[in-house]
Amino acid sequence: MANIVTPASPLGEFGRIARFFAPLAAPEALGLVDDVALIPGPPGEQYVLKTDAIVEGVHFLPDDPPALIAQKLLRVNLSDLAAKGAVPFGYLLVTALPKSRGDDWLARFAAGLAEDQARYGIGLFGGDSVATPGPATLSVAAIGRIAAGRAILRSGARTGHRLYVSGTLGDAALGVIAAKGTDLGIAASDRDFLIDRFRLPQPRLNLGARLVGIASGMMDISDGLVADLGHMAKASGVAGVIETARLPLSTAAAAALARDPARVQCALGGGDDYELLFSAPVEADAMLGSLARELALPITPIGRIEAGRGVRVLDPAGHELRVESAGYKHF
Amino acid sequence: MANIVTPASPLGEFGRIARFFAPLAAPEALGLVDDVALIPGPPGEQYVLKTDAIVEGVHFLPDDPPALIAQKLLRVNLSDLAAKGAVPFGYLLVTALPKSRGDDWLARFAAGLAEDQARYGIGLFGGDSVATPGPATLSVAAIGRIAAGRAILRSGARTGHRLYVSGTLGDAALGVIAAKGTDLGIAASDRDFLIDRFRLPQPRLNLGARLVGIASGMMDISDGLVADLGHMAKASGVAGVIETARLPLSTAAAAALARDPARVQCALGGGDDYELLFSAPVEADAMLGSLARELALPITPIGRIEAGRGVRVLDPAGHELRVESAGYKHF
Repeated sequence: MANIVTPASPLGEFGRIARFFAPLAAPEALGLVDDVALIPGPPGEQYVLKTDAIVEGVHFLPDDPPALIAQKLLRVNLSDLAAKGAVPFGYLLVTALPKSRGDDWLARFAAGLAEDQARYGIGLFGGDSVATPGPATLSVAAIGRIAAGRAILRSGARTGHRLYVSGTLGDAALGVIAAKGTDLGIAASDRDFLIDRFRLPQPRLNLGARLVGIASGMMDISDGLVADLGHMAKASGVAGVIETARLPLSTAAAAALARDPARVQCALGGGDDYELLFSAPVEADAMLGSLARELALPITPIGRIEAGRGVRVLDPAGHELRVESAGYKHF
Repeated sequence: MANIVTPASPLGEFGRIARFFAPLAAPEALGLVDDVALIPGPPGEQYVLKTDAIVEGVHFLPDDPPALIAQKLLRVNLSDLAAKGAVPFGYLLVTALPKSRGDDWLARFAAGLAEDQARYGIGLFGGDSVATPGPATLSVAAIGRIAAGRAILRSGARTGHRLYVSGTLGDAALGVIAAKGTDLGIAASDRDFLIDRFRLPQPRLNLGARLVGIASGMMDISDGLVADLGHMAKASGVAGVIETARLPLSTAAAAALARDPARVQCALGGGDDYELLFSAPVEADAMLGSLARELALPITPIGRIEAGRGVRVLDPAGHELRVESAGYKHF
């Protein structure tokens, strides 16, 4: 989940984490680099732990359908489990709700959870319900299972490996723009597709689990491709190179970019796509092609890992591009 | 952690849980009766999972010292682990903070966490930091470890067993009254003691872990003795009987009750004491006496478990008392 920086903090979000929370981290937290912790599970297994929160007016809109809010909350957490190759197991839920959210709202919220529990084979482990005089604030702590020692970490990217993404990029960022009322100049069905991609992430759990033993480094894209590749490059001590000509676009996003090529920035810098970004050795390429066909989900090579640091973005001519936004902007 | 009912909900908190969340519960959630879930751990062990949230203006005051807020947040969760007999392992943290909480506030909040991490031997497993336009909203998901099958459940109370509490009762409720400015007519040092009991719970982890194999049923007192015994009686399918003459009072609380005997209601109905309430067979009484001396913590028999349902409160003459408040009132 993308976070936002409070203006009262000259440190910013990552500075705050480094300064205040990293010193508190247990060894199981992997230096807070992966957004998950790994703890010992039953024989041969580990648990993957992850928590994410969403706030009304920041991460979702007051009038969003309650079932969709519930599913987005759950899925942003499941996406992080997918990005480690884990299989989801269950979750804890905290709801801080204003009085304006009555039983009818909660019934529809719970229905959304029930639907996704069935979809992803998980159950509710417990929770806390409190009242708040402020906006609805919801959080989930999700637990996944993975074979011991097999979780795919952000720190695993290696020089010479190829860089891949699942699905298509930029849809959610274009969807936010459309949802706010901007006419993208595209068909209504394309606009609806983009808005739907923003509203309801599809955690790539099937793909993530299948990448265990194949991908060297992995994370989900929630802050935007360039920003997230920056996190992975830093964690791995390498540099990432993106070739914009290779970015996978949906039909809808391609239509929006045809109207305004500058919108490629949505694919590079926009957040909330919740696709998987991973590195893998060149030899894995054919296997990834088969896997993409089997799962009916595009897996696209978009660049490479090199020695060095940071992220370079190359235009179709091979020239370095400047990326406008290195992180997701909320409403 | 005590919760509050939103007036928009005719169902109330427990009705909402029964209606909307119980159908979502995984088998590991124990029917949402124990406020914890148990999942398989490393060989011979289980993990105990618990989450609790606190909201500024509801569960703590805006001017409360940040370190104390952090410790209260952590400790209300650890108290639930103690009540299962578990040893704390680590936690996930969600902070939703308004812009007014700058880096200095967060530094002091983190210092409170660091102190309690060292005190309880736990580490931070991860978290999420988001900004909110509303009040600070903080939650923790705590994880404890326990020998497999040995967790002490609320459903374990048995007819004929004695009922015990740790420490003293009513301190926190009297502390809230004093903190709000009411003159209890007691010494300043007594008043400060009571306010401190309200501000900073002492999770009874050492005692809880030692009660494994001794206590039949257990929970922590967060909603108030009568309300919480009601939960335990219901979960166990039994009735609970409290003898008010036996309620353990601190010197400070005894002084406050001497000024106004009606304040016994604080010991019966007030929340946030975070003492342990448990049942045990009569044969355990001598062992519990030794344990109390060893841990320098009072363990007091306050009544018994009978066949039937609900809770009866007996005055010193053995007559049934009516209890005013069956649950904790927040600010």
